[in-house]
Amino acid sequence: MAISLRKARTIIRKALEKGRELDLKPLSVVVLDAGGHVQAFEREDGASPGRFQIAHGKAHGAVMFGAPSSVIGEIAKERPHFGAALSGVYGGQIVPVPGGVLIKDKKGAIIGAVGVTGDTSENDAAAALAGIEAAGLVGVV
Amino acid sequence: MAISLRKARTIIRKALEKGRELDLKPLSVVVLDAGGHVQAFEREDGASPGRFQIAHGKAHGAVMFGAPSSVIGEIAKERPHFGAALSGVYGGQIVPVPGGVLIKDKKGAIIGAVGVTGDTSENDAAAALAGIEAAGLVGVV
Amino acid sequence: MAISLRKARTIIRKALEKGRELDLKPLSVVVLDAGGHVQAFEREDGASPGRFQIAHGKAHGAVMFGAPSSVIGEIAKERPHFGAALSGVYGGQIVPVPGGVLIKDKKGAIIGAVGVTGDTSENDAAAALAGIEAAGLVGVV
Amino acid sequence: MAISLRKARTIIRKALEKGRELDLKPLSVVVLDAGGHVQAFEREDGASPGRFQIAHGKAHGAVMFGAPSSVIGEIAKERPHFGAALSGVYGGQIVPVPGGVLIKDKKGAIIGAVGVTGDTSENDAAAALAGIEAAGLVGVV
Repeated sequence: MAISLRKARTIIRKALEKGRELDLKPLSVVVLDAGGHVQAFEREDGASPGRFQIAHGKAHGAVMFGAPSSVIGEIAKERPHFGAALSGVYGGQIVPVPGGVLIKDKKGAIIGAVGVTGDTSENDAAAALAGIEAAGLVGVV
Repeated sequence: MAISLRKARTIIRKALEKGRELDLKPLSVVVLDAGGHVQAFEREDGASPGRFQIAHGKAHGAVMFGAPSSVIGEIAKERPHFGAALSGVYGGQIVPVPGGVLIKDKKGAIIGAVGVTGDTSENDAAAALAGIEAAGLVGVV
Repeated sequence: MAISLRKARTIIRKALEKGRELDLKPLSVVVLDAGGHVQAFEREDGASPGRFQIAHGKAHGAVMFGAPSSVIGEIAKERPHFGAALSGVYGGQIVPVPGGVLIKDKKGAIIGAVGVTGDTSENDAAAALAGIEAAGLVGVV
Repeated sequence: MAISLRKARTIIRKALEKGRELDLKPLSVVVLDAGGHVQAFEREDGASPGRFQIAHGKAHGAVMFGAPSSVIGEIAKERPHFGAALSGVYGGQIVPVPGGVLIKDKKGAIIGAVGVTGDTSENDAAAALAGIEAAGLVGVV
């Protein structure tokens, strides 16, 4: 199953709504498909200009390695040489802190990832998860 | 004047509507701010995975060089060595065919660019322009 | 509000004057606009040849991430894997030590950044701040 | 002999004055030293954001190859495979159109280069030359 643009829009809107609800700083949200390619992205007014790259790196690492960015962050902390290698093989397009959340369908297949940046990494991840669940999908934080 | 996320959404939606109205192939639309940074992006269902890069390259070249991608395309055809050089200095992030349309405000200041890809370059540019005008802004195709 | 070339010149001259006043080593000073693009740069006689890149990296990281380079430096020290990731997603164009100072206008909007290098990072930051304030703007060190 | 910052400032100011005198579009001017490293740069208000890269590429190719960018442009037109190779070995940092002017001292030694962009390539080169000569140096267009 692919993520339709309609689903991607829902994920982004609901993630941003969650941010407003929790009074977070301006968020940026990207949705990647199962191949790690950009489906949709929005950056809220007031966010710094370089937020696409961070949101993308969180979600891209998650899809490519098959684990949420929080797990990649644990790897990077415990085995820095492996974290550095992942950055190398993925051309630097990996951000190993929470906020890159895998999207699974009801059968458990990974169909993409959401990357959120702007507030604390934990709040970013919470907003991503809220968006995914509002779209009727399963998030792996 | 900056492009608000609200304006960027309008541009994308109206560009995509134009595509449906003209029965174009699935489109991908990016909106960049005046510094060439991604504000919003959407890729329609059925579009190939690598469409973000093309939409981005069209719009990015336009903002950075200060001319629509159609003009950069003329340069690249007439002076291929200059076209290649622009690609070099902008790290390959430039696509010199129509579809990268500058956004100006009412006073004539460049406030960003829209990049559209998916159909013929001319149709891509028409969709971009429709989006920009629907948002009450001025497009330079 | 954009940084005019006139303002950028004032910032650079006053930052260099501060350096002479404090008897600092030869300084290099860059002014970037709100999109992280180079507005003006000067390297004092006696500075090493590769100073543009360092001044640029301090200021570029600040604009793109929306925080002074001192804050990015704290992140890089406390969470080295995140610091490395920022370097990766910004193509290595980030130097996480003090001396990359955000420029805000009177309303609090970020309109660019100044990057200074040549002496200790703290002195670099002091020179940047002096330049920004002499131009009637607000610096975030 | 090195180019002092004072000389570099004179070159930039006089090149910009020439642009105003000839009613050229907003110019950007870089001065590189004999090693191809940035000494000073200014971008006039109204110039597009990506002008540093173009000015730099013109001057950088000139210093590194030891010929003005107009000559490199001839090479690129007549022997495109060589032009492409130069771009490759210099990491894309070369723009083979007029406007990258070598700076020689009175004895004929190359001590740097000026890169100008913003108007036609020929006008860019004329502004660069005017700046170099106003500083009492010799330009090779």
